[in-house]
Amino acid sequence: MTRSWLDPHDGGGPGPGQTPVRTGISLNGQASATGSPLGLHRVLEPVGVLPQAAWRLDPKPQIWPDEVRVAVTRLNLDAASFRQLREAHDGNPDKIRASVLEIVRTRGKMQNPVTGSGGMLTGTVDEVGPESPLGLAPGDKIATLVSLSLTPLVITDSLASWDGKSEQVPCAGHAILFGRSIAAKLPDDLPAGLALAVMDVCGAPALTHRVVAKCQSPEPVVAIIGAAGKSGSLSAAAARQAGAARVIGVVPHEAEARLLREAAAPGAGPGQQTQAGPAATGRPGVVDAIVIADARNPVAVSRAIDSAGGPADVTVVCVDVPGCEGGAILATAQGGTVIFFSMATSFTAAALGAEGVASDVTMLVGNGYVPGHAELALDLIRAQPAVRALFQRRLDEHSSGIQGE
Amino acid sequence: MTRSWLDPHDGGGPGPGQTPVRTGISLNGQASATGSPLGLHRVLEPVGVLPQAAWRLDPKPQIWPDEVRVAVTRLNLDAASFRQLREAHDGNPDKIRASVLEIVRTRGKMQNPVTGSGGMLTGTVDEVGPESPLGLAPGDKIATLVSLSLTPLVITDSLASWDGKSEQVPCAGHAILFGRSIAAKLPDDLPAGLALAVMDVCGAPALTHRVVAKCQSPEPVVAIIGAAGKSGSLSAAAARQAGAARVIGVVPHEAEARLLREAAAPGAGPGQQTQAGPAATGRPGVVDAIVIADARNPVAVSRAIDSAGGPADVTVVCVDVPGCEGGAILATAQGGTVIFFSMATSFTAAALGAEGVASDVTMLVGNGYVPGHAELALDLIRAQPAVRALFQRRLDEHSSGIQGE
Repeated sequence: MTRSWLDPHDGGGPGPGQTPVRTGISLNGQASATGSPLGLHRVLEPVGVLPQAAWRLDPKPQIWPDEVRVAVTRLNLDAASFRQLREAHDGNPDKIRASVLEIVRTRGKMQNPVTGSGGMLTGTVDEVGPESPLGLAPGDKIATLVSLSLTPLVITDSLASWDGKSEQVPCAGHAILFGRSIAAKLPDDLPAGLALAVMDVCGAPALTHRVVAKCQSPEPVVAIIGAAGKSGSLSAAAARQAGAARVIGVVPHEAEARLLREAAAPGAGPGQQTQAGPAATGRPGVVDAIVIADARNPVAVSRAIDSAGGPADVTVVCVDVPGCEGGAILATAQGGTVIFFSMATSFTAAALGAEGVASDVTMLVGNGYVPGHAELALDLIRAQPAVRALFQRRLDEHSSGIQGE
Repeated sequence: MTRSWLDPHDGGGPGPGQTPVRTGISLNGQASATGSPLGLHRVLEPVGVLPQAAWRLDPKPQIWPDEVRVAVTRLNLDAASFRQLREAHDGNPDKIRASVLEIVRTRGKMQNPVTGSGGMLTGTVDEVGPESPLGLAPGDKIATLVSLSLTPLVITDSLASWDGKSEQVPCAGHAILFGRSIAAKLPDDLPAGLALAVMDVCGAPALTHRVVAKCQSPEPVVAIIGAAGKSGSLSAAAARQAGAARVIGVVPHEAEARLLREAAAPGAGPGQQTQAGPAATGRPGVVDAIVIADARNPVAVSRAIDSAGGPADVTVVCVDVPGCEGGAILATAQGGTVIFFSMATSFTAAALGAEGVASDVTMLVGNGYVPGHAELALDLIRAQPAVRALFQRRLDEHSSGIQGE
């Protein structure tokens, strides 16, 4: 039987000055010396919950033997989180900066108290504990692939370099990686800002790929709601690679439709649409058809997808606003699958929404972790110039001038 | 390609006195006369969303041609909803009653504004529109299988017969079923209260059955979190029927463990545990092993499940309190599946929780609708005396004295 997460790993007894970690049923006899691989020893409030669920973490820089400390260079806030902050403060950069600083100061991590979401970070490995299983070394430039919502964090520069206008947050500080964590070294062949933006959303294309590849339909139709965004465009690319016969991209307005069209392979002009062809090569652009509809309007969305070749066998929701569950469900064929990646997804709206329209669809909570997800996503970027162009354009729009650290 | 939900059905032009329904892209040319099968014509606020997402519905008793009006005899509030009401009003029955009446009066439906969930109802068919596809006739005793959260409802007896102490709510009033709805005639061979309680949760055993039957493992281990509850015990029974080699029931305290043990087949005394045997027959009780742990404590839950034969290949979450995502994820083997049925599930906690512990599990939003779900659940009750005993005991505990209507 598969080895449990909770199997103890090696280590000595409690060290001097270290408080034994009490978790009820003892996780392992040496939790206080080696650190729980899940980071339980950093949970201050309430005691006994996992770091992601905790209100407050201990972000002290001194590391446990299985931890890694990272000198942070950039945070990439989750889209839903940044949207919430921007809307709550009417886009005022000073207030947004102050809000982020206050969250990190009081919680010891960057977890938006409204959305519950976090984001990712890049930085340079500073110190590696002797028992860290992550295979990192001081000096490695990395991106974390576990959420900021569970990562102990201290910001030391008051976010002075952040303009408060995008989710990319240059900063100085430190973060802690637990034993059971995931980090990827930044690739040498791609700019750091691009690699981070890709890794931030790499779970979506990886899971989309897996679902589409397993799809029972011989010619799967895949709808991507939010196809011009970072996770949406990568998921569209993944769907094609996995064998989708037709990929329909849903965007909220003409500006995003234009982004998608203009990201087509070099030589293709704006407005050029092509028919779906065999999988992978020979299909320019990011999607096979673009439709414009408000994702929060279920009737409009499903009608739009129908008109472009739907209903879909697989629908992927990559938008960061609430209220998109109904449309995704209505747009999906009986027996199909809806994958929710948006952190604005409401569980009850999805569950009740499907039941309410007697829709027999499989609904997945988009798991941000699929083994090999970073590699898959980076390879898609390398292989698909249209997706890379789209990503780069989004980064350029929000650029604060700090690239390639 | 599968026919879309949105294909128009037949009907005439707008009738006198009826306001045309405007939904942007016209759903069908005669929406205002025939009624949208999705019930859009009953949405008052905000316009254009589906009934489940709406703040307010129009519960007028006059029906559109494809609707059915039901004389309500009983509401069965969703567990999460009733718990919230009970806690918000310190268990005070008068306040709970007043709260439900106020919700229904202002919203035109029984959707808890905090949890977003609803429940089910039973009643007698009063009037059937000439174009209703549901196959019902006046006088049929039915249970609705779509949520109260989208069902237009009027209560006419001030809930005078409800003691406010359980989620079973005897009442008088009327409810409306849309063209696309699901209702099941109450079986003749089971008491109405029991049938309703079963149908209220029939999505859970049906989806559990489907997932366990497809499980790759030759001897699937299934963990049911909340195994002594109505959906949990039925899901445990379904897991066995689908071929689970071992079913582990997790309960929060000794009282629920005792409920499970005492529900064993006649002749088995309390405290008797048996080993897992071949599927279906010969296995008394509801589960093969009972463990006690707080579902909100991920370490405790996963350790408890491990100790009883886990990690699980399939974990089913049937508890009605928040904070259970982490434990379910940790208790599940890599490559396994977690099915969330609890309406208290947080999407972000599940998504980030799995990612945060690098857990490659498939996480399903428990869809309350699976074709044939009512029949499957009723058959489980008929075939499994232990589950029936458990259900009956729960009903007896909360009985207000009104049975078998």
